[in-house]
Amino acid sequence: MDAGNGAEAGDGKSRIALAVQYDGTCFNGWQVQNSGRTVQGELERGLRVLLKQDCRTVASGRTDTGVHAIGQIVHFDCDHPDVTLQRLCIGLNGILERDMSVVNAYRVGSDFHARYGAVRREYLYLVHNNPQRSPFTRFRAMWVPQSLDIDYLREAAHFLEGEKDFASFCKKKSSVVNTVRMIEEINISKNDDMLVFRFRANAFLHNMIRIIVGTLIEMHKTGRQPGYIREILALENRTFSGITAPPYGLYLHRVHYSPPLTGYESAF
Amino acid sequence: MDAGNGAEAGDGKSRIALAVQYDGTCFNGWQVQNSGRTVQGELERGLRVLLKQDCRTVASGRTDTGVHAIGQIVHFDCDHPDVTLQRLCIGLNGILERDMSVVNAYRVGSDFHARYGAVRREYLYLVHNNPQRSPFTRFRAMWVPQSLDIDYLREAAHFLEGEKDFASFCKKKSSVVNTVRMIEEINISKNDDMLVFRFRANAFLHNMIRIIVGTLIEMHKTGRQPGYIREILALENRTFSGITAPPYGLYLHRVHYSPPLTGYESAF
Repeated sequence: MDAGNGAEAGDGKSRIALAVQYDGTCFNGWQVQNSGRTVQGELERGLRVLLKQDCRTVASGRTDTGVHAIGQIVHFDCDHPDVTLQRLCIGLNGILERDMSVVNAYRVGSDFHARYGAVRREYLYLVHNNPQRSPFTRFRAMWVPQSLDIDYLREAAHFLEGEKDFASFCKKKSSVVNTVRMIEEINISKNDDMLVFRFRANAFLHNMIRIIVGTLIEMHKTGRQPGYIREILALENRTFSGITAPPYGLYLHRVHYSPPLTGYESAF
Repeated sequence: MDAGNGAEAGDGKSRIALAVQYDGTCFNGWQVQNSGRTVQGELERGLRVLLKQDCRTVASGRTDTGVHAIGQIVHFDCDHPDVTLQRLCIGLNGILERDMSVVNAYRVGSDFHARYGAVRREYLYLVHNNPQRSPFTRFRAMWVPQSLDIDYLREAAHFLEGEKDFASFCKKKSSVVNTVRMIEEINISKNDDMLVFRFRANAFLHNMIRIIVGTLIEMHKTGRQPGYIREILALENRTFSGITAPPYGLYLHRVHYSPPLTGYESAF
């Protein structure tokens, strides 16, 4: 069976969803590749060691090299229907290296799908806004030495909320045909010298958040009016937006399902 | 001349103090050694490249492998009395790797000494207190899964404040003869699941903070009364205190001088 196509678990299998955190610094992203260490590769290796079964895992969404996750959701079909969820978490964490962690496990129904079942995704993007670079935010936040005005950023970001065609904010080589997405909210807050962008949407295009953040900062630096972002949006062309902000500022924060994961039996 | 012995700068040299931050993870501590990458080694290499002079740097105190610094103070004697302080910072940061940063520079008097002139030192120790380990606090905080009672820790830590003989909280092989130190304050606060211990003293013994934190946590886990730490203190013997907490939870936060560094010409 191919769990990747949303097939149902059956024949004594039970579908389990894992909540996974990882520091993306030392991973070549989520997806298993011919070479390089990936989150999926490490997780499937852990499951193989622990459960003595070959598993295919499906994530709510792929993350690129360097991108972090606080609440990535991953499902797989388990050959051992009576496995204790808590033991599964503790066992996996004993095998996995310390830059990833399985923080919870849920015994979901066989129709649960981590990717297709996700109704809302929340990402954070961190910008360290300080004239001095910090060794502690390296690999954790984009560094912007020039002082950024949060009101400016909020005003410009506000124009991106709602259902829009984000073709200008999508990686050029993307194979996606429909570039319309619904951004429910872009919330920007400041904690000391750390700017926190919170994005909430049904789904995002490839590099969409990183291009939005890069564009907002570039517009700010070059003295554009906040409303200029509407023109970029209307052009529906990646050429007119700004740089792609670095991957290490981006965190997959939370994925929502309907019904919510909290309704299932869980480890913690 | 040997700046390490507090000799004065002269002959057209000018003494400069640098405020330095570093993530201790990839350093074999502060001090230059026969092998391995050290903070002092990197800094002196940077000064050699930038100023074309061999410099001997003196820090307020050495930090062990894995220990971090937010406000380490380092002095050296510069052959170029007319060097711009801001250029010095920017130039060094252009040469140094991203896990260290020169955040300020001060043109101090020739009698300034980073180590012997320090009148007070402040350290932080971070404990990530959460049943789940986090990939983001790895190398940044000690992980304690069992729930810690902050009131218990405060009560026990309070017994260590004041002038005491800390022989029980000093590395065994230490060559120090006088183990009396004056702890002005141990402040413990909680920020979400992060416990922050702030230590303020005139000076600390080798491993003193790490042994104090390790002992407090061990006492808590084994159900000792807070006052038990007085007995450990009175025994004046390292054998009776607890484990040495890991280096990566420790941060050299601030060093105070009299007169304060803020009184000198500075880069920022």
